[in-house]
Amino acid sequence: MATHIDLNCDLGEGYGPWTLGEPGTDEALLTVVTSANVACGFHAGDPSIMAARCATALARGVAVGAHVSYRDLVGFGRRRLDVPPGELAAEVAYQVGALQAVARTVGARVGYVKPHGALYNRVVHDEEQAAAVVAGVVGVDPSLTVVGLPGSAVLRHAREAGLPTVTEAFVDRGYLADGTLVPRGRAGALVTDPAEAAERAVRLATDGVVVAVDGTLVPVEAASLCVHSDTPGAVPVARAVRAALEGAGVELRPAAR
Amino acid sequence: MATHIDLNCDLGEGYGPWTLGEPGTDEALLTVVTSANVACGFHAGDPSIMAARCATALARGVAVGAHVSYRDLVGFGRRRLDVPPGELAAEVAYQVGALQAVARTVGARVGYVKPHGALYNRVVHDEEQAAAVVAGVVGVDPSLTVVGLPGSAVLRHAREAGLPTVTEAFVDRGYLADGTLVPRGRAGALVTDPAEAAERAVRLATDGVVVAVDGTLVPVEAASLCVHSDTPGAVPVARAVRAALEGAGVELRPAAR
Amino acid sequence: MATHIDLNCDLGEGYGPWTLGEPGTDEALLTVVTSANVACGFHAGDPSIMAARCATALARGVAVGAHVSYRDLVGFGRRRLDVPPGELAAEVAYQVGALQAVARTVGARVGYVKPHGALYNRVVHDEEQAAAVVAGVVGVDPSLTVVGLPGSAVLRHAREAGLPTVTEAFVDRGYLADGTLVPRGRAGALVTDPAEAAERAVRLATDGVVVAVDGTLVPVEAASLCVHSDTPGAVPVARAVRAALEGAGVELRPAAR
Amino acid sequence: MATHIDLNCDLGEGYGPWTLGEPGTDEALLTVVTSANVACGFHAGDPSIMAARCATALARGVAVGAHVSYRDLVGFGRRRLDVPPGELAAEVAYQVGALQAVARTVGARVGYVKPHGALYNRVVHDEEQAAAVVAGVVGVDPSLTVVGLPGSAVLRHAREAGLPTVTEAFVDRGYLADGTLVPRGRAGALVTDPAEAAERAVRLATDGVVVAVDGTLVPVEAASLCVHSDTPGAVPVARAVRAALEGAGVELRPAAR
Repeated sequence: MATHIDLNCDLGEGYGPWTLGEPGTDEALLTVVTSANVACGFHAGDPSIMAARCATALARGVAVGAHVSYRDLVGFGRRRLDVPPGELAAEVAYQVGALQAVARTVGARVGYVKPHGALYNRVVHDEEQAAAVVAGVVGVDPSLTVVGLPGSAVLRHAREAGLPTVTEAFVDRGYLADGTLVPRGRAGALVTDPAEAAERAVRLATDGVVVAVDGTLVPVEAASLCVHSDTPGAVPVARAVRAALEGAGVELRPAAR
Repeated sequence: MATHIDLNCDLGEGYGPWTLGEPGTDEALLTVVTSANVACGFHAGDPSIMAARCATALARGVAVGAHVSYRDLVGFGRRRLDVPPGELAAEVAYQVGALQAVARTVGARVGYVKPHGALYNRVVHDEEQAAAVVAGVVGVDPSLTVVGLPGSAVLRHAREAGLPTVTEAFVDRGYLADGTLVPRGRAGALVTDPAEAAERAVRLATDGVVVAVDGTLVPVEAASLCVHSDTPGAVPVARAVRAALEGAGVELRPAAR
Repeated sequence: MATHIDLNCDLGEGYGPWTLGEPGTDEALLTVVTSANVACGFHAGDPSIMAARCATALARGVAVGAHVSYRDLVGFGRRRLDVPPGELAAEVAYQVGALQAVARTVGARVGYVKPHGALYNRVVHDEEQAAAVVAGVVGVDPSLTVVGLPGSAVLRHAREAGLPTVTEAFVDRGYLADGTLVPRGRAGALVTDPAEAAERAVRLATDGVVVAVDGTLVPVEAASLCVHSDTPGAVPVARAVRAALEGAGVELRPAAR
Repeated sequence: MATHIDLNCDLGEGYGPWTLGEPGTDEALLTVVTSANVACGFHAGDPSIMAARCATALARGVAVGAHVSYRDLVGFGRRRLDVPPGELAAEVAYQVGALQAVARTVGARVGYVKPHGALYNRVVHDEEQAAAVVAGVVGVDPSLTVVGLPGSAVLRHAREAGLPTVTEAFVDRGYLADGTLVPRGRAGALVTDPAEAAERAVRLATDGVVVAVDGTLVPVEAASLCVHSDTPGAVPVARAVRAALEGAGVELRPAAR
């Protein structure tokens, strides 16, 4: 199907003295992925970390995206928070602009926006919150791309607002027969075997399908494949995915920059 | 001396449910001043407040500046904090970019940067911190103006980096004979009488001098006059200053936008 | 009905440079109420403000309670936040202990716990969150009283855990015929007239009833009456309530200390 | 010299999703040390982490201390911050009380207080800040022990206030001939070899001396030995220290609980 695809990853998820995952993971992943979703300070990511990740991404030819979140450091943006839409739009703009400026100090630029954690999950179905995220993005720069789940409210709102959009799939997460993810904590939620993740990546990229936990073949539209950075074995999984895609003749390149 | 001058004021210094000073002060001052130093979230100012102040400033023809600070909400940025220069530069860029983006969502733009509180005082003499602030600003946008004390390290570094600069004086603060401010808490530190502040403003604008607490006439270079917003009577002082300047034939207009 | 009743109020809702409501409101209210719900730093209240309010409460013979909240400064604890129960229990304990210690430094002590904002509303019906709050309180000190809405899950869990409980009603909020509050923003949500609030207080205290917005007489059990501090006219309302209760022969005294 | 000594360590220095150092370090160290300095939320340590560390400490017979800090999460409490003394005292009380309460929920108790990072260094010489820390502690509970550097202002103030005190030395830090630590970043600042650290620990415990970087024998009074938790190899160093002390006939037991 696709002759090229994007490989994106959440990065810069440390804060102050802390890093998430094993030390050196971000640097290793920046030699593998084509797009880096950089945390903007609301769930992780202080200005120094943001600057460092943008600099490395630029040096590696990796696209930079703003990984925007509810304001929730201790909960890492994973907890649902009822933010009024007008405030959410302003908070999204704030985060995007902060990363744009920090990126600029090292010569990089922000190409896209991807919501994080609880906000990511919420804008799949919540029309009001999805519209608020899009309002924040379009208000800052209508050439920014929005990355999200195929069929999500946020991508529909983004298209309606004239923003470019990119669909994504997860190579290291299990899928249900209806195309949604197996909830974390259930059997089959995570794919940790590099070979299996690699095989799934190739089928996603070339056939546009994934094998669900019940064996069903599920069609999944994805211009970008997401690999996680906060699981043990993130780097081997990402490397195996990249190698397999290249071996299958799929070119890896950023979907938005 | 000057046929025109800028009148600047710190605004947007609320946070979440809180406002600083009497309610309505910001809105009233935005009908009087020509430049608004908007807090960027580190000492005050959440994204919603930032957006609201930028919108009103735009509607009133008031220039918007980024009022950048050490990260210290509970201390309101008034406490000295030893931030390493590289981190400080990234933090300044972060704040400036955040305000730029929020301003853009309402159609406004950021014209200048003015350090706040403890950072403002520190970059008068601290070469390293001054250079860090300038590095943050120039990295984001070399057309941004830096506002500061005449003779300060930060203005010198800004000029050396090719940034436009604006000097400022305080119409509601007492001066010592050496041209520095009377420390808060000492007699003569504050000028709260509107008529007295207005008279000082006119002399600063037309003669470039201020009468120090000991009666000395002190030369003070100022392309902008600062009025405070967090003192009782801020609005009457600002109004008196503006009226007196206009009465003296001094045009009020932004120094940077 | 009652020959005595408690009058409680949220206090210490400033943070750093900010105060909520008109300056001096807290001090004035501490001459009127018998119980002060002191914010503990999660939605408002820094340690210095906490200490100051505890000291004044002690001097006035006012009981001190811990006003515990979700961690949400910018949202003032008014936004629903999905905190896992184990974490919530620890957060409640943290806040209660922090206030206990700060109170001790000025010679005061904490007599009760009352959830704030979104947490208050949630533990009316959410069994899991209600149980978590109670677990946090009982873990710190099983002699602490829990204050809440009559019929709420949190009071039931508290009683089951052996904690003393106190029911409360709101003299400055409108009631629906089913005994719940008129949602903020709707007609009749707020009672701002001191005389009307005073009359409602007396009926609540002496007859155990309130007149709902549709005219229905609604029975409301309340060992404590809550007056708000963040509305204009909070002080006159509180004073009128106190005077009317005393005039009706109802003694004002803390329900828990 | 000593027939018994305390072995203390900073623990619970994660926050939300983050842990400091290698995963499992805290748990491993809690099988080795006799006192755990638990972060209280100002530089690290959320309530859940605090509760978990207190529970494990209790199970292992390890004493719990409050590791109090300036409020500086992103800077991990390592940056000098000018907090007015009255506010600092309230902040210390807040942190101590928060930990006391969280400890109580798991059946543990706080035996001592040890300042962290920039505050630790500052109260060695700064009389005003040292007095503020002691005021905070004594206000909460005059039976709490204060742990600090021998000869420090904070220990002197603590003794004058009637608080028990414990002196400490560092087995994994180099000393100068005047008894102060080799500044981080200079040669000899860190002792990372377990055997060397162990030997130093034994000499400190039995002879009350340490060999300085220039070879001088320096007398160091220490009722407690500190091992760090945030360096690679922290666990082997701690284990070697404990084994060597036990081999030398020095009993390991908490200095304060």
